[in-house]
Amino acid sequence: MTGTIDGSASLGLLVDQILGKEGVERFHEVFSPLAHDLQEVGNRISRVMPSSYSFLTEAATFATSTGGKYLRPLVILTVYRSLGFEDTSAVHSLAAAFQLIHTASLVHDDLIDHAELRRGRPSIYKAYGEPVAIVTGDYLFVRAFQLAAEYPQPIIHMCGEASADLALGEVMQENSRFDLTIGKERYLRIVANKTANALAVGAEASARIAGADDAVARSLYEYGRALGIAFQIKDDLLDVFGDPEVTGKPQLSDFREGLPTLPSLDAYELLPVREREEFERLFTLRTKRQSQLLRLKELCENAGVKDLSDRQAEEWVHTAVSSLQSVRPGPYRDLLEKVAEGAIQRRY
Amino acid sequence: MTGTIDGSASLGLLVDQILGKEGVERFHEVFSPLAHDLQEVGNRISRVMPSSYSFLTEAATFATSTGGKYLRPLVILTVYRSLGFEDTSAVHSLAAAFQLIHTASLVHDDLIDHAELRRGRPSIYKAYGEPVAIVTGDYLFVRAFQLAAEYPQPIIHMCGEASADLALGEVMQENSRFDLTIGKERYLRIVANKTANALAVGAEASARIAGADDAVARSLYEYGRALGIAFQIKDDLLDVFGDPEVTGKPQLSDFREGLPTLPSLDAYELLPVREREEFERLFTLRTKRQSQLLRLKELCENAGVKDLSDRQAEEWVHTAVSSLQSVRPGPYRDLLEKVAEGAIQRRY
Repeated sequence: MTGTIDGSASLGLLVDQILGKEGVERFHEVFSPLAHDLQEVGNRISRVMPSSYSFLTEAATFATSTGGKYLRPLVILTVYRSLGFEDTSAVHSLAAAFQLIHTASLVHDDLIDHAELRRGRPSIYKAYGEPVAIVTGDYLFVRAFQLAAEYPQPIIHMCGEASADLALGEVMQENSRFDLTIGKERYLRIVANKTANALAVGAEASARIAGADDAVARSLYEYGRALGIAFQIKDDLLDVFGDPEVTGKPQLSDFREGLPTLPSLDAYELLPVREREEFERLFTLRTKRQSQLLRLKELCENAGVKDLSDRQAEEWVHTAVSSLQSVRPGPYRDLLEKVAEGAIQRRY
Repeated sequence: MTGTIDGSASLGLLVDQILGKEGVERFHEVFSPLAHDLQEVGNRISRVMPSSYSFLTEAATFATSTGGKYLRPLVILTVYRSLGFEDTSAVHSLAAAFQLIHTASLVHDDLIDHAELRRGRPSIYKAYGEPVAIVTGDYLFVRAFQLAAEYPQPIIHMCGEASADLALGEVMQENSRFDLTIGKERYLRIVANKTANALAVGAEASARIAGADDAVARSLYEYGRALGIAFQIKDDLLDVFGDPEVTGKPQLSDFREGLPTLPSLDAYELLPVREREEFERLFTLRTKRQSQLLRLKELCENAGVKDLSDRQAEEWVHTAVSSLQSVRPGPYRDLLEKVAEGAIQRRY
């Protein structure tokens, strides 16, 4: 075993990075039950990792034990608690399934994007090689579906659609590589498929399992979707402007891989002609030197895209928070609000 | 659309290649209903291919429209009919799910094994590139699970375990590359996981859905398992001794990729010392010239492994046929027997 799966450790990350000191004081009363929930979700994941071949079990455990933010489980659990339940055991498998679907897609994405680091450690493909990365991702998908199979058919179907969307978003992104003309609408479609839909469907499924009515379930879907878009925009900003010591991921990887994210699309739109031409020339290079990557970052700074992307992310946070109005007020609804706000305040 | 999904076309392949002329006359009465069943399974697959991104739909359709033998659907349908049912609609989604799980694993395996041809056409990774191959495989797994979700939880769980076994077998195989010392027990474990378990579980699941008692369901599991092992041994023999014009796959690919299959393991065991050393030296080369591949084949011929592997495959066919004794005699049981015999008589 190369690591243990500790769902509650993510709450520490969340407290430090997303909620901050003010959040810690304000949400003191809800942390203990949520830490317990997340621990249970981690245990649920641990229990489905074993296979009859220890090497595969080890690779799968490595992939699932890297901490991470556990954002999907956190949202699923907090949604369920916000609807009045104190015993969350009915959604532990759902939360575990969504965390595994997310992890499976990361294992495959890191391979596709040649990302050598994930959460400050080698990615699976870097640690175990490409064949094992492909198969470990498959295995995690399979275990996720076995967990989802504990639920009624409509919930399983929702988990399936969320997983299909991940595949779809990845192919759309692949076909957009080195292309600065895709426009923001397509960028948002990619982000919706790759990040937001799983959060949306997870939140909705949790609400449905809680017996919420259609209006509330749909609002929580909208909350998850807007949260996911805000979160991904922030991720894309951190790739350009973040500190790799804090993010645990290599910086400027989207430039390197030619992925047109919001900062690049905004820079391409806003830069004066000569700088824009330079930006496009450098961005579309299939291999880039470090100096060229840094020049792309500088051009983004010149275009003022950081503030612009920040504002767009803030608008999505606003949408997320507004979507919560149909949920009864209380500390867990407040926490969902704070998670949305924290999604763009974080530095990792 | 790059192809249509025609489940019944596989029956033509089966008739030509597995059953032969004698089979055509003997099984005339069962072909028409089975052709209809397979057509329905193909339709079921077609209906779950669409996504909201036409490029992904196209790649997934390309992967599923290459004909193939439809061996898993055929076994599932024939098992169900052998248990006395004329309406097989209850197992169409099961058959479609197993065909998709199989196809998903082939898409990923071809990428891992650098196999450029599949059924006489470019493999997905060759036609669409590695990223799209990874994601298309994921997408096919997801669609398979959504089909499996139509069944009670124990059946879904069986589909999950069969899929996990595929992943497990692939990693075991990966870790056995260029290693002639793995022994036949490990080879059989890899074959069981990569090929036989899905056929076994498919046959058992079909029997369970038909309401068969435990003894019959377990016998059909054993039938599928033995059929799968025989089938894979024949596949491995065809890779060395088959005609690529007929198989639709590149020849000698297991030598090239360093996969220790039965012919290689037998040759390694049986060759006199000097030839054995030559075999090992050539087999463990990371890249091999065509002349070296042909020399490996020649050494296998010298060791007489073709007959030996044939005999081992025949023993598994015998096990498969014996397992059918708990099934009521009739034309569909006879066909299951003939399929097992045909599995090792085929030339493709």
